[in-house]
Formats: sequence, C-alpha cells, structure tokens
Amino acid sequence: MSTPQDLLAITHACVVTIDAVGTIVNDATIVVGADRKIRAIAAGALDHTAPTVIDAKGGIVMPGMINAHTHMGMTLFRGLGDDMNLEDFLGRLMPAEIAVLSHDAVVAGTELAALESLLGGITTALDMYYLPDAALEVAARSGMRIHCGPNLLESDGPEPLPIAKRMAWANEWLTDSQKREQELSLPNGFDSLNWLSPHSTYLLGEEHLNQISALAKQHGAHIHVHAAETVGEMSLVSKRHNGRTPIQVLADTQLLTNAVLAHGVHLNDADIAMIAQHGATVTHCPASNYKLASGTARIVELHKQGVNVALGTDGPASGNDIDLWLAMRLAGYVQKTATSDP
Amino acid sequence: MSTPQDLLAITHACVVTIDAVGTIVNDATIVVGADRKIRAIAAGALDHTAPTVIDAKGGIVMPGMINAHTHMGMTLFRGLGDDMNLEDFLGRLMPAEIAVLSHDAVVAGTELAALESLLGGITTALDMYYLPDAALEVAARSGMRIHCGPNLLESDGPEPLPIAKRMAWANEWLTDSQKREQELSLPNGFDSLNWLSPHSTYLLGEEHLNQISALAKQHGAHIHVHAAETVGEMSLVSKRHNGRTPIQVLADTQLLTNAVLAHGVHLNDADIAMIAQHGATVTHCPASNYKLASGTARIVELHKQGVNVALGTDGPASGNDIDLWLAMRLAGYVQKTATSDP
Repeated sequence: MSTPQDLLAITHACVVTIDAVGTIVNDATIVVGADRKIRAIAAGALDHTAPTVIDAKGGIVMPGMINAHTHMGMTLFRGLGDDMNLEDFLGRLMPAEIAVLSHDAVVAGTELAALESLLGGITTALDMYYLPDAALEVAARSGMRIHCGPNLLESDGPEPLPIAKRMAWANEWLTDSQKREQELSLPNGFDSLNWLSPHSTYLLGEEHLNQISALAKQHGAHIHVHAAETVGEMSLVSKRHNGRTPIQVLADTQLLTNAVLAHGVHLNDADIAMIAQHGATVTHCPASNYKLASGTARIVELHKQGVNVALGTDGPASGNDIDLWLAMRLAGYVQKTATSDP
Repeated sequence: MSTPQDLLAITHACVVTIDAVGTIVNDATIVVGADRKIRAIAAGALDHTAPTVIDAKGGIVMPGMINAHTHMGMTLFRGLGDDMNLEDFLGRLMPAEIAVLSHDAVVAGTELAALESLLGGITTALDMYYLPDAALEVAARSGMRIHCGPNLLESDGPEPLPIAKRMAWANEWLTDSQKREQELSLPNGFDSLNWLSPHSTYLLGEEHLNQISALAKQHGAHIHVHAAETVGEMSLVSKRHNGRTPIQVLADTQLLTNAVLAHGVHLNDADIAMIAQHGATVTHCPASNYKLASGTARIVELHKQGVNVALGTDGPASGNDIDLWLAMRLAGYVQKTATSDP
C-alpha cells in the first residue's frame, strides 16, 4: 500500500495552540493530510509527502477564529449611520436594505466581508442576513465556514416574503440542508445550514416564535437571535410581550435551548440564570455595543454563572469593522474598567 | 534670480486636511519647498522643481498626529505587567527600570517607539522618560519631533540623581535648550526641549513642586505631569497634601499654567473649573486607563467647560501600544457608552 499523499506542509511556524495550558511550539512543522486534517505538529522538521510547502518564516500559525454574530452582507452599508443609537440606525438601514439588496448584491457584500474576515484570522462566521443563499455561494467559493439560515421577521425584507411564506421557506431550507451542503461542497460535519434566525422578540410575536421553535425542534436546528441589546428593545419587548424580558420570552417559547443570543447587554439576574440553565451561548459584541451606546454587557457575571460567552463583531455597519482582535481588546478593557478590576 | 529648488512633490494624493470644514482634496499634488514647508496643495498637477516625487497612488496624506503623553523608552518593558492596576504595575516596573536602563538602552527603546509611532502616523510626541538625552538623539536621527525634559521625582531613578541634583540638572537643561536644539539640528521653532516633567503630586512634596514651578517660570518652560490617574493616586495625594486633590495641589503650587496633565481621570467639578481657568490641557489616555482599570475620564464634561483635551497612548507597557487610532476609537466608544449618548 502506498503512502497517502499529504496535502500541505507549513514549516518554521510559531504554532499557538488553544490547549489547556496554551502551548506554543516554536520553529514547528505542520502537516495537513489528504483528508484536509492536520496529521502532525512538531518542533523542527517532519517527514511528509506534501507537494505544497509554505515557509512561515517564524510567523504565527493558530486556529482560525469564530465570529459568533455578524451580518456579513452589511459591508455594503458601512458608514451609513454614525453617532446614532440602534433604533435610529435601523430606521436608516432597513429601508436602504430593501431598496438595494439582491442576491448578487449580498454576494458582493458577503465576499468583501469574507476577505476582511480571512485577512483578520476569522475562518468561521455565524451570519444572519437576508438572502442567505448568497452567503452559501461565498462560503463555497472562499472556503470560509459560514453558518446561516433563513432570516425570520414579520415585516418584509429585501426577499420579500410575508411571514407565512418565510416559515415555509425555513422548513424547506432545513429539510434540504444536508443535501445542499454536499452539493455546494461545503466542509462536512459542521452543520452549517442547520440554523434558524428569528430576528428578535421585538420583531416577532409569540405565535410566530412558537412556530419557529416547533420547526427548530423538528429539524434539530440551532437558533440565532438578537436578544437584550438596547434599552429601547427592552421597552418594546416589555410592551409587546406583557412585561417580560427578551430572555423570558425566548425561554417561554422554548427558543433558549440550542440558541446563540447576540448581544445580551441588558440582562437581569433571572435572565442570566435562565441562560445558564438552558445552556445557551451569549455572543458579546463590544464594538457595536459601544459604537451605538447600547451599554456594557455583564460578561464577568455571565462567566461566574457558567454561561458560554462567545465574541462577535456584529455587522460592519453597526460595528465599523469585522475585527475580532479589536473585539478582544474592547471586551477585556471595558470589563476591567466596568468592574474596577484589572 | 533662479527658482529655489523644491525638496519634494507628492502626486495623486488624497489630502485630508484639518481645516474648519475638514476639506478633502482628491488626486492632489503637494509641493514641499526648500525650507521644508508645504508651499502648494492643489487638485491635479502642479509645476515644481523637486528632484524627489512620490506617487501616493490615491493614498491618504494628512498632518502627522501628536501623541500628547507617552513614555517612549518603555517599549523595552512591554508585557512586563498585565492584568494589574497602576500601583502594582509601577511596583514591578520601577525596579526593573533602575536595574536595566542606561543611555543606550533608552535610545534603543525610544527608537523602537519612534518606528512604531511613525508607522502609525504619529510624528510628534510629548515624552516623559528617564535619561532624556536619549530621546533627543532619536529625535535628531529619525526626524520625529520629540518634546521632553528632565524627569523630576524625589526617589532615585535609573539616572540616578537625588532631587537636589535633579533640580540643578533641570536648570542647566532649560538654560541650554535652544543651543542644544540647534546643535542637534532638531526642527526649529517647536521649543521641544523647553519642558519640565514633575512626575506627579504623589511622588513630589510641596516644597519641590514650588521649586519646579519657580524654575519653569524663570525659563518660560512647559509642565508635563501625571494627574488624577487612579483612585490610589487620589488617596496618596490626599494624605500627602492635606486632603487636596492633585489638581488643587498643582493650582496651589502654580504648576497648572502652561501645563499638560496626563490622564485626568478622577476630576471633580472644582478640578475641571480650575483646569479650564488656567488653560491647562488634559491628555486622555484611554488604552492605558482601561487596561489598568483606572477609570473613565469625564471627557464630555471637560469639553463642555472648554478644556483642551488631547489624546495620548501612555507608555507601551501600560497601554500595550503606541496607537492613536486605537485611542480615538476607545475615546469615542467609551464616552458614548459612559454617557448613554451615541
């Protein structure tokens, strides 16, 4: 039996791992096997059969970062609204999106975002945007892992689809997700189409939230939803849902299990306990939260209660950039300051 | 009479000005005359006699930025202390500085800082560091404008000089400042050596502060001083100076006129009124303030009271970087959030 051909070797790399002790391997060789998986990492030289060898010349090689909340296609609207809060920003953005977006426009915007992401070390994104077939097209073309699903809200978007048709589309999307993953040759095993994106509890009533929850349960789909981002949202949700918080509404409609909650800025202790109990993830988006003056999330308390906290950039129109290095810096700096604990 | 030879022309530049309306001139030509001053800027082509022409290819050309509080030589200690407050950081830094610093070491550290600064668009720095002859050497060699003066504190530093000798040195420094500026061929007219740097009101008693003030008055020198950076400092100063704030002590010792106050985080209304009345500048250093959890400066209130607020990076050991773009971003983001006003 002949040795299977390796795909790629990277030499003279400073390998930064994310194991429990943060091991760093200097002057290392990495060999990627025929199955596209790393088969060996070691200091110094390694035997391999790869036709392609990259000399990292001491550069850092590390796992790709995950942007756990973004709207990639929104690169097209960067700079549309500065120095305004979320509500004023959405009032400017949403009509512009309806006027401008088509499949090709979203492909262009998402492709720009993929370039910015990959240049900044982000290889996976949890995307929430209109016309998600465009994101899949960019994922297939760029090799970036883009997780996405139908965008569910009651108002028409650029698609345009009334909510009943959106629900039918969502059912179809989830039914075909594995087949489409294969057709598009997307990386296997990442379940990247198995998502529903209910926009928020302020743009969806309880009946539709329950329908979405039932559909997700039927397909074992993940939920990606905006929650508790601004004071304005808290007030809208309270009015629409009988005084409840967004987290309480999501818990009551069984949408908190298997969910990624974008923002989670305005959480009370009961909200945090519910999030922890259901094992939901909170995606902290500091650049967006601070640009829009949305507030400072209680990240230290979320950690204390055992909640999984991820980092996101939000869309590049509300967060200025798709830059997780900046997000890390802001997250650390502002939590230190907010808690007076360096 | 023959036309004087121009020095440099830059073509196809996107010129970003800082005039009252923020004029931007696209595809512009800039001509620098024999006297090293810009003699013409206009859209399109311009006649010139410069032997050196740089095609900016549409890149931005803008005035250099001013880093209004830094410790350039401290690049050597970057990473020495993370996740600690100012007091713990200084407890680690100051002995290391005494152990390590020499003229050559400070030259090396300052040169690294000059490279980082110039690459990031900073052409002028107000530096406060030991052995400032080293900074002058780097200024002469790099063309960067580094403003500096003797570092005045009661404890010995790496120099080492007891305070009485420091005062004699300071007198000599100021007496010779114009002559040395010429000897070193530093850019004229910037008064870059005409500074005294009393470290702070917690490392100097009232007697020495008064001596420094008298010396500054005698030479018309500017003052560069740390003030109101941390809660710990407020407490030390209150104990040392009979319950007064750092700003009150500086006002009482006549050090508030012609002064640049680094940090200004913990200011009460009376402090802000005194700063405004004396026309002092506050240098906001957000990266350092947030990394050390020092607190959030009242920048909006300072602006309201007419105080001139500058931006600084602080030293790269306490602020991680010499990056005024980051400082701008942090200043805007956190003030928006602190005041709930986007």
